[in-house]
Amino acid sequence: MRAARLSRRTVSLGTLATGLVQPWARPSWGAPDAIDAEIARRHDEALARLQTWIRSPTIAAENRGVADGAKLLSELLTSAGFDTVKQVPTDGVPGVFATLDAKAKRTVGLYFMYDVKQANPAEWASPPFEARVVDLPELGKAVMGRGAVNQKGPQSAFLAALHAIRGAGKKLPVNLVLVAEGEEEIGSPHFHQVLAVDEVKAALAKTDGVFMPFASQNKDGSVIINLGAKGVVECELIASAEKWGRGATNDVHSSNRARLDSPAFHLVQALATLIDAKGDPAIDGWLEKVKPLSSTELAMIADAAKRTDEAQAKKGLGVTTWARDSDWKTALADLAARPTVNIEGLVGGYTGPGGMTVLPNRATAKLDFRLVPDMTARDAEAKLRAHLAKRGFSDLEVRVSGAYDPTTTSASSRLITAQVATYKKAGLTPVMNPRLGGSWPGYLFTGAPLSLAAGHFGLGHGQRAHAPDEYFLIDSTNPNVKGFDAAVRSYVDYLFALA
Amino acid sequence: MRAARLSRRTVSLGTLATGLVQPWARPSWGAPDAIDAEIARRHDEALARLQTWIRSPTIAAENRGVADGAKLLSELLTSAGFDTVKQVPTDGVPGVFATLDAKAKRTVGLYFMYDVKQANPAEWASPPFEARVVDLPELGKAVMGRGAVNQKGPQSAFLAALHAIRGAGKKLPVNLVLVAEGEEEIGSPHFHQVLAVDEVKAALAKTDGVFMPFASQNKDGSVIINLGAKGVVECELIASAEKWGRGATNDVHSSNRARLDSPAFHLVQALATLIDAKGDPAIDGWLEKVKPLSSTELAMIADAAKRTDEAQAKKGLGVTTWARDSDWKTALADLAARPTVNIEGLVGGYTGPGGMTVLPNRATAKLDFRLVPDMTARDAEAKLRAHLAKRGFSDLEVRVSGAYDPTTTSASSRLITAQVATYKKAGLTPVMNPRLGGSWPGYLFTGAPLSLAAGHFGLGHGQRAHAPDEYFLIDSTNPNVKGFDAAVRSYVDYLFALA
Repeated sequence: MRAARLSRRTVSLGTLATGLVQPWARPSWGAPDAIDAEIARRHDEALARLQTWIRSPTIAAENRGVADGAKLLSELLTSAGFDTVKQVPTDGVPGVFATLDAKAKRTVGLYFMYDVKQANPAEWASPPFEARVVDLPELGKAVMGRGAVNQKGPQSAFLAALHAIRGAGKKLPVNLVLVAEGEEEIGSPHFHQVLAVDEVKAALAKTDGVFMPFASQNKDGSVIINLGAKGVVECELIASAEKWGRGATNDVHSSNRARLDSPAFHLVQALATLIDAKGDPAIDGWLEKVKPLSSTELAMIADAAKRTDEAQAKKGLGVTTWARDSDWKTALADLAARPTVNIEGLVGGYTGPGGMTVLPNRATAKLDFRLVPDMTARDAEAKLRAHLAKRGFSDLEVRVSGAYDPTTTSASSRLITAQVATYKKAGLTPVMNPRLGGSWPGYLFTGAPLSLAAGHFGLGHGQRAHAPDEYFLIDSTNPNVKGFDAAVRSYVDYLFALA
Repeated sequence: MRAARLSRRTVSLGTLATGLVQPWARPSWGAPDAIDAEIARRHDEALARLQTWIRSPTIAAENRGVADGAKLLSELLTSAGFDTVKQVPTDGVPGVFATLDAKAKRTVGLYFMYDVKQANPAEWASPPFEARVVDLPELGKAVMGRGAVNQKGPQSAFLAALHAIRGAGKKLPVNLVLVAEGEEEIGSPHFHQVLAVDEVKAALAKTDGVFMPFASQNKDGSVIINLGAKGVVECELIASAEKWGRGATNDVHSSNRARLDSPAFHLVQALATLIDAKGDPAIDGWLEKVKPLSSTELAMIADAAKRTDEAQAKKGLGVTTWARDSDWKTALADLAARPTVNIEGLVGGYTGPGGMTVLPNRATAKLDFRLVPDMTARDAEAKLRAHLAKRGFSDLEVRVSGAYDPTTTSASSRLITAQVATYKKAGLTPVMNPRLGGSWPGYLFTGAPLSLAAGHFGLGHGQRAHAPDEYFLIDSTNPNVKGFDAAVRSYVDYLFALA
């Protein structure tokens, strides 16, 4: 979920109005059964497994823990009952491919990531790679550490479900095919190579779809099902005297501005062409493949607008006015369906306190572009380059660091109908959302040649992915938000629903 | 010389063609006299004085060494023979006012600064506040430290001249009035308060002009006399969701760009209006007070173009093409006479390696604007604000951190004719330049009510002002570039020439 969130809160549609959530006292939402007992019995073992995983970080951006990460995941999968587990070499960090043949009729795909985002220990209340259990107000006991919610916590809960089913002497209701990567946080640059392996492709092709374990429950108890995600192109746009052939290749005294061109202004002039006066995309041909929301999708948005709290969403974001002075329904529709041109960061020349009379030789804008069907990342990048070239900015470097196509999965797919059924069994009526405003590499499953359903699923609660003090709730004291054992149970129920 | 240089090299007109320089073997360029002997005898004492000064830094931006700096300068002035030395309180760092009544016919003004720019020791080859003597290739022994050339080295050489004249039993040929400040590096925000004191104003009014000791000799031996300097407005332009009332006041996940306005793009759109397609100022009314170069000034530029080396200037700056594809003469004229709009730095949102999917709530451009006669800093700031307001950018904060009007001194003033004579005596034919491309607070002397001549003078060589490894040459091994004792002698000769 690299591009999908800075913190969970900021990506959610808003906050659900109250009255939708029913608390439950046990992992299961019916009478307790043997699997519940096994989940409870194995609670400490599962928690220890998650802590061990967090304490062994893989950080692709730092080339840290790469070999250890693939090895540890392989061991976790073998221990959970997968009968074949293979590392899949790529041009980068290795992938992992695993299967579990339960002699079941149906097969379900899983997508895991074993890498995590960087963490600066100085910013954390609890050391990011110690996975301590901490008390959180209004929530209860949680594991705090990098990867706790993104994605080791939910994935550990899923593995705990396999342990519990087996431990209770039950037969797994579906076969499993699992693919994992260790480069999700740097934009999955080689994951397509894992999926291109014949054996992997053939195994995935037999599945009813692919899901990623996910901490879907918000602090107010609400759950949202996203039927897809926007695509993204993330890049740096760099103006430099060196490539431009104008200005000074050293940082020189700003008095020279009188006789020298400015790469920083060259960048500003290029950036200004990317949007119109209102701030909307103005790149040549950018919107020509954009598909408007269908009447069904519009109905979902209308329902979400009624069931979610605009005022609380605005408060959470620190917002008084939506772009284009839109109403709440339009703001939700925009989040799902409007392509974006965003400046993530600007950096060039002197960036310290006060001023420094320098004429910088280069300046960089960090950009991201969110894409909707039927845009593609490749076409978007080509359009960006053509747009710049046409306006005299062909010297600007476009360094793409991550690119995902949009991904869409039908609400009527087995993957999704089973999600709705499982949440409803738990007393939750999920809000259906046509498309997540963020991005994940689901398009590799939903696109050709696999053309599978793909999405996220799971109870469980955590926040602060990519931020300090990331956590995953273990033992809840909040009646609206359930802890680890209930998350485990949600995976058990989902697998049975999928069968 | 806060706004005047990043490094000396970058502000010079270029590099003089060879053949202009005559080496000399002694501080004096005639037969050695008693003053030469005294300069040589006091060489180590003067060096030690400079080292002591560098080891006691005053850094206004950090409020460091403020009281010590004024005290130390006062002691240095008293020791050099000034008979009244007073600290002048301001709303910021105190100024210093000193007079030396030599019972001479004429009185000369001096401008000193006792503060220095910040220094990051990690970037230095020799600790910036230890003032070690180091060996520099092709130059010889130099003092390395913050303030070595900007401005403690040249000022120490001037004080050494006073010691030498007195030590040799000679009478000082002129009376002196000295004004100093400890906030030059933050844009002289309170120096006008020093000059507004009746006693100071009256004393300065009696002078033939004011000069600042300055290391005027380039590495090739050339010397340039600047007959003025551009003015400057230095400011931050800040776009924020808070002031704009649009976008998110937190940094939020970039997916929200679909429904939220972008302060960073708001800034980009504002910046793009400040220049035209060629990068030249496009602020409303910006050029209406610009006075073109006179025929005399144009002749100076033509002479400078002939006598300086374009290829070497381009090489030093890392430049292949001047702005507007100008020739060398036009490039020199632009440096002297063209107003500028410059981006010193851009900073906003995520500025680390790679990307981060964030929608920043604020972005800042650090700008400087160079002004030429008859523009004024106050009028320029007003025009900038009006220009922004007219285009819907009145929410952007304009935080001015420094502002100087342009300053001009006549080539026929006694201050300048004495400079030419002194340099010529040393075998140097100075290049006359109508106006320095950088800026200094000389307008406080040349403007009303004082309306004095003002400029810089001094042999001596040093570089890397504001940069790491700043140095001032002490014992030269380069026949073209003279060391400390010759710089001292140049001040002796200048004072006699002024008399």
